[in-house]
Amino acid sequence: MIPIGERINGMFKDVRSAIAGKDKKVIQDLAERQTKAGAKYLDVNVGTATADQVGAMKWLVQTIQETCNTPLCLDSQKLDVINAGLSVMKGHCMINSCQADREKLDVYLPLCRDHNAALIALCMDKEGVSQSTEKRLENAATIIEKAAEHSVSPDRLFIDPIILPINVDQRQPQFIFEAVSQIRVMSDPAPHITVGLSNVSQGTQERSLINRTMLVMLASHGADSAIVDVLDTELMNSWITAELMMNKMIYSDSYLKAALA
Amino acid sequence: MIPIGERINGMFKDVRSAIAGKDKKVIQDLAERQTKAGAKYLDVNVGTATADQVGAMKWLVQTIQETCNTPLCLDSQKLDVINAGLSVMKGHCMINSCQADREKLDVYLPLCRDHNAALIALCMDKEGVSQSTEKRLENAATIIEKAAEHSVSPDRLFIDPIILPINVDQRQPQFIFEAVSQIRVMSDPAPHITVGLSNVSQGTQERSLINRTMLVMLASHGADSAIVDVLDTELMNSWITAELMMNKMIYSDSYLKAALA
Repeated sequence: MIPIGERINGMFKDVRSAIAGKDKKVIQDLAERQTKAGAKYLDVNVGTATADQVGAMKWLVQTIQETCNTPLCLDSQKLDVINAGLSVMKGHCMINSCQADREKLDVYLPLCRDHNAALIALCMDKEGVSQSTEKRLENAATIIEKAAEHSVSPDRLFIDPIILPINVDQRQPQFIFEAVSQIRVMSDPAPHITVGLSNVSQGTQERSLINRTMLVMLASHGADSAIVDVLDTELMNSWITAELMMNKMIYSDSYLKAALA
Repeated sequence: MIPIGERINGMFKDVRSAIAGKDKKVIQDLAERQTKAGAKYLDVNVGTATADQVGAMKWLVQTIQETCNTPLCLDSQKLDVINAGLSVMKGHCMINSCQADREKLDVYLPLCRDHNAALIALCMDKEGVSQSTEKRLENAATIIEKAAEHSVSPDRLFIDPIILPINVDQRQPQFIFEAVSQIRVMSDPAPHITVGLSNVSQGTQERSLINRTMLVMLASHGADSAIVDVLDTELMNSWITAELMMNKMIYSDSYLKAALA
């Protein structure tokens, strides 16, 4: 499992304040806590409140890397903000994200190749978010085909089928499960599957329960990554147990601790 | 979802003592509590400690039916014990269980038809418990074929793919998920899928977490029933949420309560 920690995001008040006040400790604490909780990447998103997004991204990346070696996941819809992060990046990272339009993949995939980075590629294009199994598979096929064209190995891809809130369209989870199963066999090595998990519970009263239930279901269909609140212990324990069921780790009485060691 | 409450079983000390001492209150309380917690059937198993299993089954069925209308699931490997339960049964019930051998199905299916009962049919035969996807599908096909021959509608069947403890063979869950998906499309109407859930966590340290994780995964592949501890609130909440994700109930802010109303 490849958990991507969601907490260093300017949409959270503590992070927004830390960016505004250049308070390194808040950010470094979040980096350390998420790493201890099992994050394999740390998402870094400056949010929308910051006027200087380029400057904020550089500061966040540098601040985290002063005390933490966990790979970062540079999260912005703006290419110049991604590039700002890459300009100060040490080591491997992930770019979050690129849509499935050919012309966009032609920009982001060479960037990944040149920076030795992974890429979150979304099942959405200029026509909008994919809402059927078929449209998701079409987007995924375009992403995998383009990756081959740009010499990016499929296991550098994290394809995101895009989860909608459950109170918006209850048919989507089944469409997504079907798509995930099929995308995983589209190439060898298989692309990773990731999701912005918390979206499924937007506007609901049982966010943590809905999040972890959806994550376990996704894992049973082959999804191996997700952007999540890794500080949610129940969520992480459910995910680890799902991995155990999928035979991705060996059972021991202390398997929950062993998974985070 | 069709939860079958597992608690009225002579393997539990309180039930064993109640049977020995003819203490109706213990049994009637368990029936009421499980019904309130969402059980659609109550499993009734006299256990192995009782010398007079026939008498104990009759007493249990009559005792429960004095105060509770929830359908019962008569659970014994002995046909005379099942028949004892049937002889005093009011209304619809379930028989638990029959193996997938043709000669056994030729006995149990007519019994179901004549008593208007459902049947748990196991993916195991005289060669033993099914341990591959293929063997489970072969057993399921025999069960469905035999049900047609005896004029039992497939939706009266609860096919059990048989779960083994996760610390015995970690490949089994994936084999089971694949089998469940395929069994569900073997007939129209589809047969139900049930499991003896607690078996998956036998001998482990995290029983409740492993049970509910496996149940959510099974639900995402189409299983709609399980013999469970319905008094485990976290398990039931996880299952209800999985049903929500499978679009089997409508979202509302109070969906957890609504599911048990």
